[in-house]
Amino acid sequence: MRFVYLDYAATTPVEPEVVEAMRPYFTEKFGNPSSVYTLGQEIRAAVDQSRRVVADFLGAKSKEILFTSCATESINSAIKGVAEAKGREGGRLKLINGQPPHIITSAFEHHAVLHTCQHLQRLGFEVTYLPVNSDGIIKACDVESAIKEQTILVAIMYVNNEIGTIQPISEISKAVKEKNKNVVFFTDAVQGAGYLDCQVDSLGVDMLALAGHKIYAPKGIGVLYVRSRTPWIPQQDGGGQEYRSRAGTENVPYIIGLAKAVELLKKDQEELGKKITQLRDKLVDGVLRNVPNSHLNGSRENRVPNIASFSIEGVEGESVLLMLDRQGIYVSTGSACSSGTLEPSHVLTALGLSPETAHGSLRFSLGRHTSPEDMDYVLEVLPPIIQRLREMSPTKQI
Amino acid sequence: MRFVYLDYAATTPVEPEVVEAMRPYFTEKFGNPSSVYTLGQEIRAAVDQSRRVVADFLGAKSKEILFTSCATESINSAIKGVAEAKGREGGRLKLINGQPPHIITSAFEHHAVLHTCQHLQRLGFEVTYLPVNSDGIIKACDVESAIKEQTILVAIMYVNNEIGTIQPISEISKAVKEKNKNVVFFTDAVQGAGYLDCQVDSLGVDMLALAGHKIYAPKGIGVLYVRSRTPWIPQQDGGGQEYRSRAGTENVPYIIGLAKAVELLKKDQEELGKKITQLRDKLVDGVLRNVPNSHLNGSRENRVPNIASFSIEGVEGESVLLMLDRQGIYVSTGSACSSGTLEPSHVLTALGLSPETAHGSLRFSLGRHTSPEDMDYVLEVLPPIIQRLREMSPTKQI
Repeated sequence: MRFVYLDYAATTPVEPEVVEAMRPYFTEKFGNPSSVYTLGQEIRAAVDQSRRVVADFLGAKSKEILFTSCATESINSAIKGVAEAKGREGGRLKLINGQPPHIITSAFEHHAVLHTCQHLQRLGFEVTYLPVNSDGIIKACDVESAIKEQTILVAIMYVNNEIGTIQPISEISKAVKEKNKNVVFFTDAVQGAGYLDCQVDSLGVDMLALAGHKIYAPKGIGVLYVRSRTPWIPQQDGGGQEYRSRAGTENVPYIIGLAKAVELLKKDQEELGKKITQLRDKLVDGVLRNVPNSHLNGSRENRVPNIASFSIEGVEGESVLLMLDRQGIYVSTGSACSSGTLEPSHVLTALGLSPETAHGSLRFSLGRHTSPEDMDYVLEVLPPIIQRLREMSPTKQI
Repeated sequence: MRFVYLDYAATTPVEPEVVEAMRPYFTEKFGNPSSVYTLGQEIRAAVDQSRRVVADFLGAKSKEILFTSCATESINSAIKGVAEAKGREGGRLKLINGQPPHIITSAFEHHAVLHTCQHLQRLGFEVTYLPVNSDGIIKACDVESAIKEQTILVAIMYVNNEIGTIQPISEISKAVKEKNKNVVFFTDAVQGAGYLDCQVDSLGVDMLALAGHKIYAPKGIGVLYVRSRTPWIPQQDGGGQEYRSRAGTENVPYIIGLAKAVELLKKDQEELGKKITQLRDKLVDGVLRNVPNSHLNGSRENRVPNIASFSIEGVEGESVLLMLDRQGIYVSTGSACSSGTLEPSHVLTALGLSPETAHGSLRFSLGRHTSPEDMDYVLEVLPPIIQRLREMSPTKQI
């Protein structure tokens, strides 16, 4: 049976070159980079070199790059660290004109952002969850209007992880800073890193999060960019690692692996984007043509090359997923982090889809090893599955 | 030149069997364990199996085991999570009889514990840092006396990471619970895991932290044990991973690797302990005999098999370390996490050593690959180095 993995937005395989780069750091080069002797210092030099590679990818300084254990940690650390620095005075909230400190985010962020904001709400912070239009794009003017005297932080994602729409980050950051230059601007760039420009100055962000396992490095490594002089308090206390900003012995093999993955990305990012865009367009056109009553979720134009999410009326996304699985095709209904729940996707309901339609969604996410033949296979297998499921459905809506 | 690594307490090499066990999870078995399709579910099953191995090692239930990115994360999460659950009401500290919530720890914990406690002090919590006697052992009666109405948490380490002394954890937990059964008891068991019984019921602990890279798994994986019904709030928000207690895509390869390392440990733990104790005794006897004015730090008896720390009068520990490095011997002056600072070790000063004596300390930590010949080599190389350094010293104290 053919094996077609189309869930690169959930996680990517680790590139063989990345595995090879990491290998010596498990065994012979196993020293602790904080150790003073030769073995430790060699490892320190390798970690520093990896940090330069990542800093260069973001157009940042090495000292602004922190290695974390995943994007979720980076996101928690960014949001809670700014909340603490700007929103607390000892054991108390720092009220501004009698009102609690205020955070702005969007209704369709990743749960790492949403649940962190909800956690802060339980601790007394105020949070605005901006609505999204049906195109899946946050408008800069909406962000600007939401800013008030108490606003300390804006957190808007670069690319939505379920539908792939690109948010106008530079435009938003400009609007935010013009309204109040003291507001910290953070972006979750996890799904953008593989295909889009992530230079922090052109994006205009103060903080940014990346995940290794969406760009062919392993699960268990992330990056937090913190612009110099951003008011922020580290959230993991202990040893003096990562410029005293993220305690804990460095995950040396994965740091080396992440830098290798970034190097590979730099080599083929543009070419890969073009190739994947073509394949995705082939998929989108094919699905819309061959599956009646199917719709692409979110803007067709402002979209990362590799993600296409469809609403397919009259079917359950999970049933489609399981039937595709039996044909060797791996896709998802939404975010892997939310699977296992019966709730409809918060992203799709934020776009205005009904819970029923949201339940009929399927996300295809392409990647470096996706081929035109994979698309042909999907377009051959999917339409009869949808037809069969619709025939089985007792409601026969379609 | 001979290569003699004697810094296993800083980090261990990853065992080849562990590397082999992890390898397929980078490439062919790369799926996200939260994914619903076959590839995801196979990985989920492997993660579950690893969790059972670790749970069994601790005599705990699978649901009480959380995989984290390192012991530092586990420690931060444990202490801050209990502080939030028991010490906060929304944006405010939960005062008890008008006084802030109170935490007890010792003066010679790892910095992950100390700096986390200091962070909480800045947020209004009260912290008692118990003194240590010159043997390097915390007395249960001292802990008991420090407990008051406001006490929410006691955090005492199992084995001190710099001097290797074993703390009477079961005795302390019994004393704590008898005084007030609602106090949560946490232990940092990082340096105990390789050699001592870590069954949570015999230790009597509610929470416990482990690090992979001290037991021949990689840097970047840790464990947090949380006994059922412990009042604790997760500190990393996002997806529903780890029973909704630690968001973030699981570091699958390292979870598999950690379980393999634990299996290897179970096989040879007792035998290894005996072997290492003999080697360590040979080292201790040799150093005390052949290096005049040298002293073993902490109790000779209540000591983990693999750590021996010496105070050597009239020399700088760092100079000895660098000269040993040139002979291929890797040791440390204290904790790797604190190296690079000029402060004398907080552990040694807590034992009552003067800053000068503390600066003359050397930690040897043995491990699975240490041989009798390694000890012979150290005992041949070390005494002339000390003699030479003392001759070079302008003060000629000795």
